[in-house]
Amino acid sequence: MMLKNHDCGTLTKQHVGQNVVLNGWVQGWRDFGGILFIDLRDRTGIVQVVFNPEFSKEALEIASRARNEYVLAVQGQVVERDPETFNPNLATGEIEIRVQQVEIVNSAKTPPFPIEDGVEVDESLRLKYRYLDLRRPEMQQTLRLRSKATKVFRDYLDDNGFIDVETPILTLSTPEGARDYLVPSRVHPGEFFALPQSPQLFKQLLMIGGIERYYQVARCFRDEDLRADRQPEFTQVDIETSFLSQEQLLTMMENLMVKLFRETIGVEVETPFQRLTYHDAIHKYGSDKPDLRFGLEIEDVTDIVKNSDVKVFASVAASGGVVKALNAKGCASWSRKELDDLQPFAARYGGKGIAWITVKDGEWRGPIVKFFKPEEIAALTERLNVEEGDLLTFSADKLKTAADVMGNLRLKVGRELGLIDNSRFKFLWVTDFPLVEWDEEAKRYVALHHPFTRPHDDDLHLFDTDPGAIRAQAYDIVLNGYEVGGGSMRIYRRDVQEKMFAALGFTMEEAKERFGFFLDAFEYGTPPHGGIAFGLDRLIMLLAGRTNLRETIAFPKTASATDLLTDAPSAVTERQLDDLHIRLSAKALAAQAKAAAPQPSEEPAPQA
Amino acid sequence: MMLKNHDCGTLTKQHVGQNVVLNGWVQGWRDFGGILFIDLRDRTGIVQVVFNPEFSKEALEIASRARNEYVLAVQGQVVERDPETFNPNLATGEIEIRVQQVEIVNSAKTPPFPIEDGVEVDESLRLKYRYLDLRRPEMQQTLRLRSKATKVFRDYLDDNGFIDVETPILTLSTPEGARDYLVPSRVHPGEFFALPQSPQLFKQLLMIGGIERYYQVARCFRDEDLRADRQPEFTQVDIETSFLSQEQLLTMMENLMVKLFRETIGVEVETPFQRLTYHDAIHKYGSDKPDLRFGLEIEDVTDIVKNSDVKVFASVAASGGVVKALNAKGCASWSRKELDDLQPFAARYGGKGIAWITVKDGEWRGPIVKFFKPEEIAALTERLNVEEGDLLTFSADKLKTAADVMGNLRLKVGRELGLIDNSRFKFLWVTDFPLVEWDEEAKRYVALHHPFTRPHDDDLHLFDTDPGAIRAQAYDIVLNGYEVGGGSMRIYRRDVQEKMFAALGFTMEEAKERFGFFLDAFEYGTPPHGGIAFGLDRLIMLLAGRTNLRETIAFPKTASATDLLTDAPSAVTERQLDDLHIRLSAKALAAQAKAAAPQPSEEPAPQA
Repeated sequence: MMLKNHDCGTLTKQHVGQNVVLNGWVQGWRDFGGILFIDLRDRTGIVQVVFNPEFSKEALEIASRARNEYVLAVQGQVVERDPETFNPNLATGEIEIRVQQVEIVNSAKTPPFPIEDGVEVDESLRLKYRYLDLRRPEMQQTLRLRSKATKVFRDYLDDNGFIDVETPILTLSTPEGARDYLVPSRVHPGEFFALPQSPQLFKQLLMIGGIERYYQVARCFRDEDLRADRQPEFTQVDIETSFLSQEQLLTMMENLMVKLFRETIGVEVETPFQRLTYHDAIHKYGSDKPDLRFGLEIEDVTDIVKNSDVKVFASVAASGGVVKALNAKGCASWSRKELDDLQPFAARYGGKGIAWITVKDGEWRGPIVKFFKPEEIAALTERLNVEEGDLLTFSADKLKTAADVMGNLRLKVGRELGLIDNSRFKFLWVTDFPLVEWDEEAKRYVALHHPFTRPHDDDLHLFDTDPGAIRAQAYDIVLNGYEVGGGSMRIYRRDVQEKMFAALGFTMEEAKERFGFFLDAFEYGTPPHGGIAFGLDRLIMLLAGRTNLRETIAFPKTASATDLLTDAPSAVTERQLDDLHIRLSAKALAAQAKAAAPQPSEEPAPQA
Repeated sequence: MMLKNHDCGTLTKQHVGQNVVLNGWVQGWRDFGGILFIDLRDRTGIVQVVFNPEFSKEALEIASRARNEYVLAVQGQVVERDPETFNPNLATGEIEIRVQQVEIVNSAKTPPFPIEDGVEVDESLRLKYRYLDLRRPEMQQTLRLRSKATKVFRDYLDDNGFIDVETPILTLSTPEGARDYLVPSRVHPGEFFALPQSPQLFKQLLMIGGIERYYQVARCFRDEDLRADRQPEFTQVDIETSFLSQEQLLTMMENLMVKLFRETIGVEVETPFQRLTYHDAIHKYGSDKPDLRFGLEIEDVTDIVKNSDVKVFASVAASGGVVKALNAKGCASWSRKELDDLQPFAARYGGKGIAWITVKDGEWRGPIVKFFKPEEIAALTERLNVEEGDLLTFSADKLKTAADVMGNLRLKVGRELGLIDNSRFKFLWVTDFPLVEWDEEAKRYVALHHPFTRPHDDDLHLFDTDPGAIRAQAYDIVLNGYEVGGGSMRIYRRDVQEKMFAALGFTMEEAKERFGFFLDAFEYGTPPHGGIAFGLDRLIMLLAGRTNLRETIAFPKTASATDLLTDAPSAVTERQLDDLHIRLSAKALAAQAKAAAPQPSEEPAPQA
């Protein structure tokens, strides 16, 4: 066949007069008075190729057999179009190709959906025919953006002395590995590898191994019920360093983000990134990943209303809870229905309700207004900066719940008031996460990140008195309300590690049983180290302006962890199971028997 | 702690007078008349730091508690050494650091082996303490080389319009998947994912998806009995292109190798690479991955000896076999023992023996000489270029066996005669592999690569008459006798695919059952495409001048697929198995019971 010497989408008036060979797919065709116009598409774009009996009868005859998605090779001359036929929607819209020769390289069945952007197609159909979906310009651009973005990550890290090290995918199942994917061993009957949820242990071992600066674009695995924005396998840019302070690391990562956004989508992000402690993020924005593209801060009014005649406020305050308030500026005009809907809205986040007050014609209205004393109204007016037209909302609950309710209400109000500038990229560091939190069920403290997270030096004394108050040297990087990465400095001193385990309720001996070789490694001269991991899929989603993680992945899985293209997972043979020394459970056998029976319906479509 | 502002190994006379902070590990220490000299090591190298009571009594006192592998932070002045104490073995050998301040950042137990190169340490001990082994300069350099090499791959491919696309690791188990690692699904009882042996299907789907140029540094998995140079998980640089000829692709890959060797180890490799057809490689060098750093070609002498009185030659020739000869130049001096050892040598490769003739004092000697007619001797003399001092060797067998025996003898002789220049990198393309080969057991043809490999256009007519003679558009890239990559052009025409399946003994319907969605994809306008995959681990091994694949991998597994560091694979809990809907087989349960009993010995050490 004739192999291309140019790309379809790159031809312009500069090429006029040149003889070119193009290869591509038929995007569309129309016969106009015996002249055939075909839009030929390759990954660079579309160009119009023209078959005219005056150029070649034979070429016209061959081309007239082509249909959509046929693969053609054409050879012809680039000519300028008549100005009145310029197509401003096409980069190549001022030229066309006069075809002298054509080959039908391959035919195609009619695709199950049109290969173009902006067409409503059921996502499960797109996933089943992913190889056709990938031909759409939008998918091509997203995959190209993803490739470019990982290159920027790598270039920056390479230039800063990092080494790309591959860590194992067949690893050890840990006691914490409830969500591990397991892989039975053929060689060692009854034993299993686990797929890593992250390269955490290995990257710390690399620091102990003196690598000093490591990164990896690492595939990670988590076997859990999938939400719309999770995938069973996902990619993180995993980074670890020795001999750097948290401050040095965060600055380095800010510069990485600057380069990433500049070189992929031409956006200049502001530095230094804003910082919020976890405490302030929760209190002011009701979230540990607040969207700071708009203000609308939440206020704590517990001190004002703790003796109020609003019973629920007083009783919550008395039992150690908080009363959080959000002034939805200008929302006094909400309908009764909108106000009533606040109750189910609160319930969605575990709240008992949202109290409200409208400020109209200088008057406060709402079920609770009558219970307020004048000085409470005065204090609230000042604290919440109350003005005509405002809607005051309140959540009284345990901090976590009240924050969650108000944080989500803040987002809802922000969206409805159009406060969010979608063209903006607003980064934020959330720092000083608690080191441990109390687990009511286990009746002990558990590590918020993992048991190797380093506490603040200033808080070490709290191990003995109030472990829950210890701040960790842990940080998340948040973009427009999404957590796009996170990490921590790690413990490297044995005395601190012992205190940490004691706080979690283990002796060092119990810890050794649990963490085995990993704790051994710490005994041989561990350097101070720490790191971060970026969620690549989500970062690409935000860079590409998409709202669905699956759009950023060439071959994603559905919300039920199925690959609709290959139909994985699937049953395997008895022989394969024998080789791996496993058998199916009764439940699995029953499921298989049922699957063997005729199926009335297909798997439900995944939800976006 | 004091964080470093310089790296140990980079300090030179240029830094004299500067005050620096260094962090690193104690490589060694010696007390010399009350002055303490410590070699401080980080990933860049070693520098001597000096503790003298005249600089700081306190620093000396603290440092005197340090032992090997302690982590120190030191602050001091770079000074020039006395010329008589220059250390020419150290890049920093002309300077030292006068320490004013020191911190013991961390202590270390005595390591189980010295952290230096060139020390004989049992490999299993090194693997168990890999985090210490990684501190050795050699391991650091190899991992750095690996990181650099993948960067060169990526840069070259990015610059040539390739897109880095990640393909799934949780994939479908195929009927050919006898060596698949399987992963039970929690969500779908009785169903399994498979880990990919290569991204073959996905990369071809990407071509159907119009990506045109794809690459990935891809983790692949093969669950098989491991030889010394195999790993259960390995890395390949996986490449696929559309609309390129084989010739264009091979040239592009040659330029990639040129760049790789130039930019990693500063070696200029010659282009164009030599080419050999599979036929010629087997016939002339007895191998499909010949080491062409030396000549010593094998000759076919079947025509000369087919009527010989050497019975075995005549009978092998009569039954369709071949007689292959190698003239081991100058080896007539081999001892009787060496000549006798040729028999077990041949047996190792399945041969029945090696006949030999020495040429000494103008006379041919050896058991078979008396059976030759003068015209046979004359013809052999000419064909084998026989001269005084030569050792003529013969293998009579089926082609495959004779080639294997002579090919290995060629390597042995080449090594013993010192014909191999170890500083040389000799690339070679082996092309025109057979498309299919006859499987005696299955009584049918099987695909040599896979059933989507494209046959030569000129050989299509042979499908009806002699499928075994069809040449594939398949190629391996060979370096110094190692296969470092391979690939093929793929079938994209339905008529050719049907012929291929017919040759393999399937109807198109049977093929669809077997290959399902993948064949469906081919119906929607498949472009001509083809690709290659490089074995990264082996390539790094050759670049780094190592002889063991494990040296190129940060955390490798042993020959029995065990990770000696983490002890993976391991037993898991009943609860985990329940969640995955599997149970252990009787054999696995028995193995577990046995493992729970006291163990007399450790796992045997892996063999290099």
